[in-house]
Amino acid sequence: MTIANDALVLDAAAQDLLFREARTANTFTDEPVTDEQLQAIYDLVKYAPTAFNQQALRVVLVRSAEARERLVAQMADGNKAKTSSAPLVAILAADNEFHEELPNQLPHFPQAKEMFFSERPVREGSAAFNGALQVGYFIIGVRAAGLAAGPMTGYNAAGINKEFFADGEHSVLAVVNIGKPGEDAWFPRSPRLSYDEVVSTV
Amino acid sequence: MTIANDALVLDAAAQDLLFREARTANTFTDEPVTDEQLQAIYDLVKYAPTAFNQQALRVVLVRSAEARERLVAQMADGNKAKTSSAPLVAILAADNEFHEELPNQLPHFPQAKEMFFSERPVREGSAAFNGALQVGYFIIGVRAAGLAAGPMTGYNAAGINKEFFADGEHSVLAVVNIGKPGEDAWFPRSPRLSYDEVVSTV
Repeated sequence: MTIANDALVLDAAAQDLLFREARTANTFTDEPVTDEQLQAIYDLVKYAPTAFNQQALRVVLVRSAEARERLVAQMADGNKAKTSSAPLVAILAADNEFHEELPNQLPHFPQAKEMFFSERPVREGSAAFNGALQVGYFIIGVRAAGLAAGPMTGYNAAGINKEFFADGEHSVLAVVNIGKPGEDAWFPRSPRLSYDEVVSTV
Repeated sequence: MTIANDALVLDAAAQDLLFREARTANTFTDEPVTDEQLQAIYDLVKYAPTAFNQQALRVVLVRSAEARERLVAQMADGNKAKTSSAPLVAILAADNEFHEELPNQLPHFPQAKEMFFSERPVREGSAAFNGALQVGYFIIGVRAAGLAAGPMTGYNAAGINKEFFADGEHSVLAVVNIGKPGEDAWFPRSPRLSYDEVVSTV
């Protein structure tokens, strides 16, 4: 438990749950993660902002043994064991054709679809950045459900895109193990950069 | 106020503060945003995860009138007025030379610096993705301090990089207005994609 900082409005228990005591888990218990938990996580974090309200993030829950096997085959060696054993694994990807939905998502500015996103490379760049924001929100949301997240970027991205997004319109952003932390779930916490190393004033 | 979802551990007030009632503000009051608030925000969100604990995000607080003017000149027309009037504007950027700090930040695996990040294009891609995660965490942190964030990506990125990061080693990720929401601070909330539109199961 830490001392609450007076400059924050968020209560200390929530600070601990989401940031101070939450950790990237490398092992998990057998307790299942339910679709109801995923729906609650999504229905919370969907409100966090993206540019033009574009919401490019897509989530694939890997629940079948067959799909799990296909995913593990694409993971870096150091990530295979935890990807095999986590109660739930989610593939987080950017939908590079997000602009098709955009007029519905941005009713006060439906022209944005054609004005800004008619070119695929522009869409891919925007989906990569905004999708990554949403990966960050998703990780916080997993923690809000009292679960540990184990985000990974060590994998064959082209292989995952081919195996799980046959339409050629999605780019994997992260693979996230989700569950209750198991035995020896984490390393000692590594150092963080200090405020003065990160923040400057002009 | 909304009904707490039983599948979440995070208390309902925190859910509202960070996600459900928080909005992207387009106008702000005159109330200043202090360095103490920024330090509290950073000291909370610094714990959220990045790959290899790389922490590529850098934050420049634009406090002088001269710097504010230089920044406004690089913003898209639709963003100039709010960038001029927000109590505080922060430039969020990725440090593409983050690997220099990496052995200190990842003491159990100091070889990562040379094994994975000796090539600049690889570093730039990793810093862009992980820096974007940290932009997402930062926005949540601003809200945790009871402030509204107004993140923007409409600007001349090359111009901002040149004006504010003369070393050529940083890439702007977002510019964020920060303060208490003012009059008519937001549009009606735009629709969000439903769970079934975003989440699938294999």
